[in-house]
Amino acid sequence: MSAGLGPIDQIAAELARLPSIGRKTAQRLAYHIVSMPVERVQALSDALIEGRRAVRFCDRCGNYTTGELCTICANDERDRSQLCVVRDPRDVAAMERVHDYRGLYHVLHGVLSPMDGVGPADIRIRELLQRLQDDTVREVIIATNPDIEGEATAAYLARLIKPMNVRVTRIAHGVPVGSDLEYADEVTLSKAMEGRREL
Amino acid sequence: MSAGLGPIDQIAAELARLPSIGRKTAQRLAYHIVSMPVERVQALSDALIEGRRAVRFCDRCGNYTTGELCTICANDERDRSQLCVVRDPRDVAAMERVHDYRGLYHVLHGVLSPMDGVGPADIRIRELLQRLQDDTVREVIIATNPDIEGEATAAYLARLIKPMNVRVTRIAHGVPVGSDLEYADEVTLSKAMEGRREL
Repeated sequence: MSAGLGPIDQIAAELARLPSIGRKTAQRLAYHIVSMPVERVQALSDALIEGRRAVRFCDRCGNYTTGELCTICANDERDRSQLCVVRDPRDVAAMERVHDYRGLYHVLHGVLSPMDGVGPADIRIRELLQRLQDDTVREVIIATNPDIEGEATAAYLARLIKPMNVRVTRIAHGVPVGSDLEYADEVTLSKAMEGRREL
Repeated sequence: MSAGLGPIDQIAAELARLPSIGRKTAQRLAYHIVSMPVERVQALSDALIEGRRAVRFCDRCGNYTTGELCTICANDERDRSQLCVVRDPRDVAAMERVHDYRGLYHVLHGVLSPMDGVGPADIRIRELLQRLQDDTVREVIIATNPDIEGEATAAYLARLIKPMNVRVTRIAHGVPVGSDLEYADEVTLSKAMEGRREL
């Protein structure tokens, strides 16, 4: 549209602030939104703000929840002896999609990153150590990402937790299932070799 | 998240209704949105619904506007003897980005499509013919898409308008600038040959 028309450009500008939505996509979406029935746009608009308002962090694990405890912490059938440590709530969702893991989680809300000024006090490490005090947890599985910050955070946590007589494990690194060896990067291949198992 | 958590899934479901946003992108965006400051989500939510409410169709050309006439129709410096006919307001925006065309527009809000049950009465053809009554318009440039429906609509309009003693033209089809001949489809290449010009 020409310069005079505000609303569409304004919608596009707001959408373009979201991750993975570029300027062109934002504009296409904005044009689509003004062509939608008002009721549909109202539903979208309400879902965003009401959804955001309804969501808070679980008092125990830091996952997203609408109540005090998240559905996982509140579930009596979960194994309280295992704690899977992840960077953020999205990682909880990813793990839960697998349906394999029956323990609890601890969301750090970040990883150690000296470059970005994120130190141990900036992520939920203190809360993690507190959860280990009552001897319920027998194993802490560190599932931070297999990148530099994730590995550094894993190493840091292992050093803190091992003296507490709790088993500390790290998720395996290797070639993704269904992928092609040819396209695996060297570090992944090296990790895959290192982590090889007897068949 | 696990099945119990509504708001994030609801945001994702609303976003996934938008074009070009798949289930995975919608979920990633939903997680991002609940992690945003409430004020930012409020701004996004407001831009959507207030933007949608503010936008209506120009009484004259059918383009999006916030007032009675769009900024193009209201602009006295535009050439009133030329009318560019497009399918929807997004096409007006595309043409305007070129800055070459100084005439007015007419937005059909669709193209003829017997397959989808869209006939001449379903798009703004009557309004177009009315605009040609007062002899101001000397040329109608049909800029519908170069696909089957766009071509059929162009041919239909040409047949209606020519007897009114108005020049009817069609935008050129050909090889896109900057593209590679090798990758052009045969119909485009054939159109490019057909529309060749003396150098």
